[in-house]
Amino acid sequence: MADLTERALLDRIRAHTARRLGVAVGIGDDAAVLDGEPAEVVTQDFLVDGVHFRRATTSPEDLGHKALAVSLSDVAAMGAGPVAAVVGLGLPTEDEPSPEEIEALYRGMEALAERSGCTVAGGDISEAPALLLAVAVVGRVPRGGRPVLRSGASPDDVLCVTGALGASAAGLMLIDDPRLGAGLAEAEALRTTHRRPAPRLAAGRALAAGGATAMIDVSDGLALDALRLAVASGVAATIELERLPLAPGVAEVAVAAGREPDLLGATGGEDYELLAAVPEGALPALRVALDVPLTPVGRVERGVPGVRLLRDGVEIRPARLGWEHGAER
Amino acid sequence: MADLTERALLDRIRAHTARRLGVAVGIGDDAAVLDGEPAEVVTQDFLVDGVHFRRATTSPEDLGHKALAVSLSDVAAMGAGPVAAVVGLGLPTEDEPSPEEIEALYRGMEALAERSGCTVAGGDISEAPALLLAVAVVGRVPRGGRPVLRSGASPDDVLCVTGALGASAAGLMLIDDPRLGAGLAEAEALRTTHRRPAPRLAAGRALAAGGATAMIDVSDGLALDALRLAVASGVAATIELERLPLAPGVAEVAVAAGREPDLLGATGGEDYELLAAVPEGALPALRVALDVPLTPVGRVERGVPGVRLLRDGVEIRPARLGWEHGAER
Repeated sequence: MADLTERALLDRIRAHTARRLGVAVGIGDDAAVLDGEPAEVVTQDFLVDGVHFRRATTSPEDLGHKALAVSLSDVAAMGAGPVAAVVGLGLPTEDEPSPEEIEALYRGMEALAERSGCTVAGGDISEAPALLLAVAVVGRVPRGGRPVLRSGASPDDVLCVTGALGASAAGLMLIDDPRLGAGLAEAEALRTTHRRPAPRLAAGRALAAGGATAMIDVSDGLALDALRLAVASGVAATIELERLPLAPGVAEVAVAAGREPDLLGATGGEDYELLAAVPEGALPALRVALDVPLTPVGRVERGVPGVRLLRDGVEIRPARLGWEHGAER
Repeated sequence: MADLTERALLDRIRAHTARRLGVAVGIGDDAAVLDGEPAEVVTQDFLVDGVHFRRATTSPEDLGHKALAVSLSDVAAMGAGPVAAVVGLGLPTEDEPSPEEIEALYRGMEALAERSGCTVAGGDISEAPALLLAVAVVGRVPRGGRPVLRSGASPDDVLCVTGALGASAAGLMLIDDPRLGAGLAEAEALRTTHRRPAPRLAAGRALAAGGATAMIDVSDGLALDALRLAVASGVAATIELERLPLAPGVAEVAVAAGREPDLLGATGGEDYELLAAVPEGALPALRVALDVPLTPVGRVERGVPGVRLLRDGVEIRPARLGWEHGAER
């Protein structure tokens, strides 16, 4: 499905979604919000072999890490801290993973959970047509705080991104074709970033506390996720490609593959960085408060909701803005 | 996998599950428990085409109903009330459901959510090898209450079951072979019970408030779920087959299929009734308080953890106690 199809579908689904006491945000944000003190967020993601990962090139421990990281990243994008993860595991009857593989998978999940201050607190094992992980995470917003939605960006906000871009996409390219990284010092670091993304939990809370008006995690590509934030907020977003903080080695891999480095950073996907809209005045304090770099990459303006990519002031229209729910992987 | 294999696996997984502040119950109960006031429970289930349902014989609306009902039943078994459901939908690229089918699916879910006092509050759509629904539900325990676990049964407690047994299994048999129900007035009601099980939410809360010491929902067969409750509680459970409240028509379908009616009731699965351990003195008030029948079907005793099925005092050993995570469906 194209992005517009998915969005149209979500719109139809949303029409059926009653809004009742206790639940403030419906389908369409990174997580659902449960009113309360503290407010809570709930995310639900699943990863299936052959769609979101390939068992042949993913170690069980990396897979466990990544399955949880994807959900924690959604929690981070709400400015919340994770409390508990509940995991459903689907096992194929053909080529069923061994108990050792399953243990390794949970070990990868546990290690990340521990570092993230949450617990893998329950789960279900069932048969499935392919190896499948369904992960729900409950998070809590710091007392007195409010979850940061995709929809709060205001005209004149600055668009900022945490950390660095393109490492995961470049890492995947290196996993598929190691020759692209021949002699590249950063090759292993790029592959590791693809396999073990680090959800920006501390940065998400600091951005929320420091005045971010809207936030989304960069899961499908900065450009596509910026489009989602812009549409949810009813604003026009502009990204200046020359400002993108590419991770070390990304440009070299892109060039070796005949790709444009800035577009790889803008559309590569699976960065699991945070894209935030921030009032300009809040930026200096935020850049000090965060435990990772925070880079202004664009701006929010009044206008038709959408996203424009500029390279030295000239609009660039890439063939695609990012990954649409893994369908192209 | 046999039940013991699954349990051994869960034991190994549990060994990796850190118990930290804020999460009281790990893998192995119907839901994970988050400490707090009110305490919360979180469940996670997924249903996949070909394993947990068959798209060919399940309408999208029924499927939506059932996917949510399964999770609500887990919430009911904790004595909690559901607040929000977060749904992940996996769509196959081959034979992709139409937008109308997906709407019908959500409609089935929404209708049950509305009747159950919860909201379908978010979700994710992605590609999957087969139609897949992953449902996480957050529930809250009434203020001042505690969630009822599987592990609290005491010797001399009475084992009780809500509602009636066998209807879902008989209904599935009728869906597969309508001739079994020729001339049977209850045939359609049995099929409907299979397609649209009613989670026992009010009964679960009343059982919790009225002193139930342990509870589990009957998803895989009364006998197998009684075994799970007994093992979790470290007690011996006895079920008296002649006391089982079979739903009207179940005996006729069983006889037509050459099955023993009481064993169909004991091992049929997907009843989504509640099995509770209750102190004998609490039973009269509970039977008045519940909105459905509550039938004593056995007893908890000191002894080697396990379950025995008695027919007029003679132990019966069926080939299997119930469905093991859908693998036999």
